[in-house]
Amino acid sequence: MSTLTDQLRQTEAHRSIFECAVRRLPLPTCAAFGSADKPQPVSFVATSRVLASNDPEGVRAQFPQSVAASGNAVLAAAGSNLRQAQGKRVAVLFSGGPAAGGHNVVCGLKRVLGNGNTLFGVRAGPKGLLKGTLFEITDANVDFILNTGGFDFLGSDRTKIKSAEQFAQVRETCVRYQLDAIVVVGGDDSNTNAAVLAETLFAGVKADGSGVQVIGVPKTIDGDLQVGDLLSISFGFDTATRIYSEMVGNILQDTSSSLKYWHFVKLMGRSASHVALEVALQTKPAIALISEEIAAKQESLASIVDRVARVIVDRSHRGMNYGVLLAPEGLIEFIPEMNSLIAELNDVLAHHAEEFAAQPEDARAGFVGGKLSAGNAALLASLPAYIVRMLLAERDSHGNLQVSLIPTEQLLIDMARKRVGELDPNVPFAAHNHFLGYEGRCGAPTLFDAAYTYNLGLTAGSLILDGRTGYMATVTGLGSGGKPQAIPLAGLINIERRHGKDEFVIEKALVRMDSPAMQYFIARRDDWAREDLFSSPGPRQFWGPTANQLPLTVALNSGAASLMFRIGD
Amino acid sequence: MSTLTDQLRQTEAHRSIFECAVRRLPLPTCAAFGSADKPQPVSFVATSRVLASNDPEGVRAQFPQSVAASGNAVLAAAGSNLRQAQGKRVAVLFSGGPAAGGHNVVCGLKRVLGNGNTLFGVRAGPKGLLKGTLFEITDANVDFILNTGGFDFLGSDRTKIKSAEQFAQVRETCVRYQLDAIVVVGGDDSNTNAAVLAETLFAGVKADGSGVQVIGVPKTIDGDLQVGDLLSISFGFDTATRIYSEMVGNILQDTSSSLKYWHFVKLMGRSASHVALEVALQTKPAIALISEEIAAKQESLASIVDRVARVIVDRSHRGMNYGVLLAPEGLIEFIPEMNSLIAELNDVLAHHAEEFAAQPEDARAGFVGGKLSAGNAALLASLPAYIVRMLLAERDSHGNLQVSLIPTEQLLIDMARKRVGELDPNVPFAAHNHFLGYEGRCGAPTLFDAAYTYNLGLTAGSLILDGRTGYMATVTGLGSGGKPQAIPLAGLINIERRHGKDEFVIEKALVRMDSPAMQYFIARRDDWAREDLFSSPGPRQFWGPTANQLPLTVALNSGAASLMFRIGD
Repeated sequence: MSTLTDQLRQTEAHRSIFECAVRRLPLPTCAAFGSADKPQPVSFVATSRVLASNDPEGVRAQFPQSVAASGNAVLAAAGSNLRQAQGKRVAVLFSGGPAAGGHNVVCGLKRVLGNGNTLFGVRAGPKGLLKGTLFEITDANVDFILNTGGFDFLGSDRTKIKSAEQFAQVRETCVRYQLDAIVVVGGDDSNTNAAVLAETLFAGVKADGSGVQVIGVPKTIDGDLQVGDLLSISFGFDTATRIYSEMVGNILQDTSSSLKYWHFVKLMGRSASHVALEVALQTKPAIALISEEIAAKQESLASIVDRVARVIVDRSHRGMNYGVLLAPEGLIEFIPEMNSLIAELNDVLAHHAEEFAAQPEDARAGFVGGKLSAGNAALLASLPAYIVRMLLAERDSHGNLQVSLIPTEQLLIDMARKRVGELDPNVPFAAHNHFLGYEGRCGAPTLFDAAYTYNLGLTAGSLILDGRTGYMATVTGLGSGGKPQAIPLAGLINIERRHGKDEFVIEKALVRMDSPAMQYFIARRDDWAREDLFSSPGPRQFWGPTANQLPLTVALNSGAASLMFRIGD
Repeated sequence: MSTLTDQLRQTEAHRSIFECAVRRLPLPTCAAFGSADKPQPVSFVATSRVLASNDPEGVRAQFPQSVAASGNAVLAAAGSNLRQAQGKRVAVLFSGGPAAGGHNVVCGLKRVLGNGNTLFGVRAGPKGLLKGTLFEITDANVDFILNTGGFDFLGSDRTKIKSAEQFAQVRETCVRYQLDAIVVVGGDDSNTNAAVLAETLFAGVKADGSGVQVIGVPKTIDGDLQVGDLLSISFGFDTATRIYSEMVGNILQDTSSSLKYWHFVKLMGRSASHVALEVALQTKPAIALISEEIAAKQESLASIVDRVARVIVDRSHRGMNYGVLLAPEGLIEFIPEMNSLIAELNDVLAHHAEEFAAQPEDARAGFVGGKLSAGNAALLASLPAYIVRMLLAERDSHGNLQVSLIPTEQLLIDMARKRVGELDPNVPFAAHNHFLGYEGRCGAPTLFDAAYTYNLGLTAGSLILDGRTGYMATVTGLGSGGKPQAIPLAGLINIERRHGKDEFVIEKALVRMDSPAMQYFIARRDDWAREDLFSSPGPRQFWGPTANQLPLTVALNSGAASLMFRIGD
């Protein structure tokens, strides 16, 4: 074997030239943790800021021990923790879809817990906590996963821990591994689950009557886990949107090179359009649809299509038979008439499941149409077959439509083509569609996500060593060095009545029409539609002058002084 | 307006933080051009290496002036050109699909032509040469487009210049702008066209009886324009494959994080599988299909599907219900039985166009089936409706199937699912599909493509100042500093008899089974199928320790000593 093939063999199994290099990148730490080389845990004090959700009394009734202990007060760092606990046994797990930076949360935890405590990894998510598939994480593991993307060091799944049997299994795992604490890295649902676990495990788990602490870490590429200035963004959002932005920038560059195609790009983000808005600000395409705006304006599908078609026609008249449209994955559910149709369909399919299943394939739309209100039946009949097929497809485990499977981008293309033809039959319209989703969840974390998550790990570990439970770790002041803080999970919980039952939920942060990021977008978008003003933000860089950027929506919404983040000094 | 929104406004129209930074990157030049700050044109001498294609006499008969002038000899640089021409008027155009680095070809041309000559850009490709839509390129233009992706500075199209009327239009443009030379940046077809143009314009174009020089520059992301050690790769291939490799690496990381999905990824590359092979070497997925191997082994669709299904089942038995499969876009045409079906379909559709068009939609497959040979009719009937629909869809302007529209990745998923169920009904198989294409054509060029294309531009400009015509610019020795050279276009031309007519073609370079890159892939792929040995090559970097990589297939096939390129000292 030649030297060259030897070199190539050495790149196998997470050892690409790039992966080896990013492992050696320095990681900045917030000043509170002392030296970056050997970060020290901090202790916390309650601030005067107390969180309250839509039903404080109801929440207190459900989370009595958590609320009594925390008073729902936000915690701030109070100097390094000189009397930190030793001998703690801590488990960390990933929950839900992967997001860049998860590995660095683990690294931060391990480093701050140090050799005096033990960190376990839970394999394959919450399910692993039920089954008790834990293993001890070593310093060598940390050196290997540092700054790499994905959740593959542990794996993940979407199991929701809610039944009495499941809670018993968790207790069994806690006892078996003599756990003192669990760190749940996840989104809004997983952090709600963490709040419930914190209350359930508050006391009486171990032989000595003590409980198990539970700390949440805010993850989601959708960016819909936000708590004002306490949590300006969940981790993974920056990496995902920068990956999508590069792709959209490349496609924009292609449109004005090839001069003959429209590209309709669907972006991940089911409930909120933060991803679409961030990518729009990064790239400045001709059209970006924002679900929340469509819902706020009660815009109909026909009106959206007309708006899109008019941009296509206007650009063509200006000599541009090309452009890019961005649409969030969840768009279709935000269009009022589609939302009403989907809701009624969910009901009809749930109530007539057997009869429906017994229908031959080609009779199903007719069967369902007969059970719908007249307006919804007419709307269903007006949609192309490939959309109807997906609207009638199998529901997810919660009985909901699997929105990501709906080819919204193709629907918009087909409807826009028809409308363009009505407006001006001489306008050519050739279009491609894209769905940017999985590509963005597991890339190597940007320097922002890498530093942010490492410090979230340091914060979560510090909370554990400080004896806290029922908090979400956060890092505030991302443009000015960064401060470890903690948000009381019970203070985020709302109670919503769904299907006749009280449900605890951490509300998803949607794009607000009056937010600076949305206002900036609204102020600029007409110019972007009229002329080619796009930018290519390029691939995310880990070295050099462009490596330290903040997400633009975060910079705008937090009133940052610069487009660069600063964690550490 | 705040400072922040001001900063954001300044990023519009190709002025992202990244774009502004890459414009300032230093560009290395081959030693032959003297200083990198102020590169000087070189002169050329014929080497003893003479190229000959499949019918040297036939080619000589068609390209008499070109062959007489060049003797089909390869040119090498012979020191700096001290008696270089001044006052030359040169036009440059982009032809075909965009590829990263095109802008740097223009920059290299402009810099080496200097202020003593004039460089024109042709808008919108070969069609612009017919219409005469030229404009003068300034130094400010060059500063602005340097190191940026896409062809959008000029635009491109796919017009083939072949009719007498078209040649007359080109002459008119040459006369109108008093052109001395034309540089055609394009793939195999465009360089064939450049050879024809060089011969046609060899003499007698301008009033003084002189001709117009024509120089080709080798572009194509597919990587199928290669001439052994004289042209180890066309430009754009490195950038495209590194973009795809990052996406595939991210998806691989996602599979082993989410633990439940297969992803079938179709990659651009219709005629050759260089892209798929390069991405496979970069990322090490469970399965990568190489069209040339399937053709060489005459592997049937059923056998391919069986091979894929056995990997899925075997991995599942080892606890991995996930993986990634790569397939080249052109795969379906390389499967012997599909190739035969497509060829017969092309014939049948060409000969029964009107009758076919008159059939109602749902009768078309039956109509065509009745005209096919029994074997092909049975194969057509066995394919899913969505494949049949695309197989019968409109042909391109050459009467060929539009292969990129065939959802090969979905066909493989559906057939693999069935076969997996036969092999072991307990193996779960959930799959997503992707097509990575347009995202890779217009990204910012890697440092390799940026340096390579800039030096190709310097070489093309030098050839013009040295009075040469009918050559393709090339840079050899990409791992050892780089040498400007020139390949006689007529020496690359083969004559093929198609539809009873002689056609000139530069043969596409396919993946060779005995090439070091393919042999390395074959040696490793079983291990990659059995275990997770993948790597994430990460986003391409423009600063830092990982910025100077060579494409792996190029490094292996050229016997490079290292995985890094070196242009300049």
